[in-house]
Amino acid sequence: MVLGAAESAVLAFDVGGTDLKAGLVDASGNILGLRRVATPRDPLRAGEAILDAVEALASEFAAEFPGHPAKAACLVVPGIVDSDIGVGIYSANLGWRNFPFGEKASQRLGLPVAFGHDVSAAAEAEFRFGAPRDFRNIVVMVVGTGIAAAVISDGYPVRAGGFAAELGHALVPDPDSDSSGHTILEAVGSAGAIARRYSAKAGIPLAGAREVLERAKDGDTLAARIWADAVDALAFSLSQCVSIVGTEAVVVGGGLAEAGEGLLQPLRSRLDELLDFQRRPVIMRAQLGQDAGLLGAAMRARALLPAAKAASGTQARS
Amino acid sequence: MVLGAAESAVLAFDVGGTDLKAGLVDASGNILGLRRVATPRDPLRAGEAILDAVEALASEFAAEFPGHPAKAACLVVPGIVDSDIGVGIYSANLGWRNFPFGEKASQRLGLPVAFGHDVSAAAEAEFRFGAPRDFRNIVVMVVGTGIAAAVISDGYPVRAGGFAAELGHALVPDPDSDSSGHTILEAVGSAGAIARRYSAKAGIPLAGAREVLERAKDGDTLAARIWADAVDALAFSLSQCVSIVGTEAVVVGGGLAEAGEGLLQPLRSRLDELLDFQRRPVIMRAQLGQDAGLLGAAMRARALLPAAKAASGTQARS
Repeated sequence: MVLGAAESAVLAFDVGGTDLKAGLVDASGNILGLRRVATPRDPLRAGEAILDAVEALASEFAAEFPGHPAKAACLVVPGIVDSDIGVGIYSANLGWRNFPFGEKASQRLGLPVAFGHDVSAAAEAEFRFGAPRDFRNIVVMVVGTGIAAAVISDGYPVRAGGFAAELGHALVPDPDSDSSGHTILEAVGSAGAIARRYSAKAGIPLAGAREVLERAKDGDTLAARIWADAVDALAFSLSQCVSIVGTEAVVVGGGLAEAGEGLLQPLRSRLDELLDFQRRPVIMRAQLGQDAGLLGAAMRARALLPAAKAASGTQARS
Repeated sequence: MVLGAAESAVLAFDVGGTDLKAGLVDASGNILGLRRVATPRDPLRAGEAILDAVEALASEFAAEFPGHPAKAACLVVPGIVDSDIGVGIYSANLGWRNFPFGEKASQRLGLPVAFGHDVSAAAEAEFRFGAPRDFRNIVVMVVGTGIAAAVISDGYPVRAGGFAAELGHALVPDPDSDSSGHTILEAVGSAGAIARRYSAKAGIPLAGAREVLERAKDGDTLAARIWADAVDALAFSLSQCVSIVGTEAVVVGGGLAEAGEGLLQPLRSRLDELLDFQRRPVIMRAQLGQDAGLLGAAMRARALLPAAKAASGTQARS
């Protein structure tokens, strides 16, 4: 996998809710070193704690690969992110507000540092190397405990200062409402919601959405309904994407995508019912797996290098 | 109003459902000649009939303004449009399918001709010269008999081959449904739908949405409910835009916008109720009026000229 034409290595950091992945990636896109540590959590210095870990990992790579000095880096994080100004605006889960990751990481590492959103970076990697290579209008949806997404329009990621692609909080019809009430997608369509709604209605605590799908296959009508509610909600939100940004391809990742065609097939047919004259988007499973965010971050780091800047037209415009 | 730095005049044609407007626009953005003719309708040669009128109007301008020869032109039309390839894909109202307007107009006029969507062109003119100058993420919504829209993300119009911004066909909760049913925005939120729904429920034929608003102000509870349903539906679709593309500003044009704050104020407050942590977009009335489409077409025509191409970074990427 070739990530760029420049000759230097870059550092990529993908900060998740559970772990922080770091990679040293050479000019051919080979991940020379890959490390995974528990994401540091410090309520009093949430952002600085992340950067302590980033700095330590960078030092370890420098010691281990002295022949591959990093020339640039990229850090991607969850939450609301303004990649244009390098600021992590808000992470409910990890606890920072308006933390200038880009500038501070650059000071600590002594390198140019790109900064962005984890799912956006994963989406860009999927867009560039993964399944939907033939399309320029893509939605990547990561469905797990929550729902994160990225929107690529006319070949470029839509950023809107970090406020785009907040699909998890988009409105959907509320299946528990008698009238035409609504709730948010994450409350019905996420893996977390599927397990939670079944447990609440059945009075049986379940480990996860996978169990609900298993029960549905075994003829449990409540499980089948909860699963169908999730599919309906996901399809409803995708229909909005089709109408607003003309989505041609949908890439589904995250824990719920492990259901494979058990999720994708009903999703396709429900979306088909909801749409009118609009194009039906191709719906496929994410291809790059757990390292997509890291690969996307490496792409962004490489885009900071002079050779890549001169050669490439694939980076974001901003 | 300065439309560009080039020194030549351009031709702009805005094809509407009722009339076809044509303008000869000089390098300073002055409309030297403005003509309006009934939109030609010919079921057997829908696209060619439009071009007959375009060619005739161009000849009239050439005769009337011999000192201002046009160096480029742009034609904008309603329906589904692929501006990248110059094709009018579909217009239910005017009757063409897959008609190569761009290529044929260029042959007839002997000029480079840009081709695009009428509302997109109006939106670009509003973006460049009208109200929302401070924003880069804008939705322009033209609410009349139907609903047309344009989406500008990160400063660029989202095209998706003509399939973006089909807000009129986006799903909204159906106010006439007992359960959590849905319908499309145009069926509840358009001026046409407001008049139609009131007439159907009250058994009184009304001329238009304006009368429904008047009745609501006079204490007619059915009229107030129909108006509120429309506001709810418009706010619901705008909430989807906010969640999907991070909309910062909404520009409302078309007949319904003539209600002014009678529409915009409840729309703001309903959207505020629907949103959670997201940014509240500024909601304002379109500023450029009836000529916005023509001005947008003139901008696109001017962008074809070599001087404009060299100087400008405001055109679409594609």
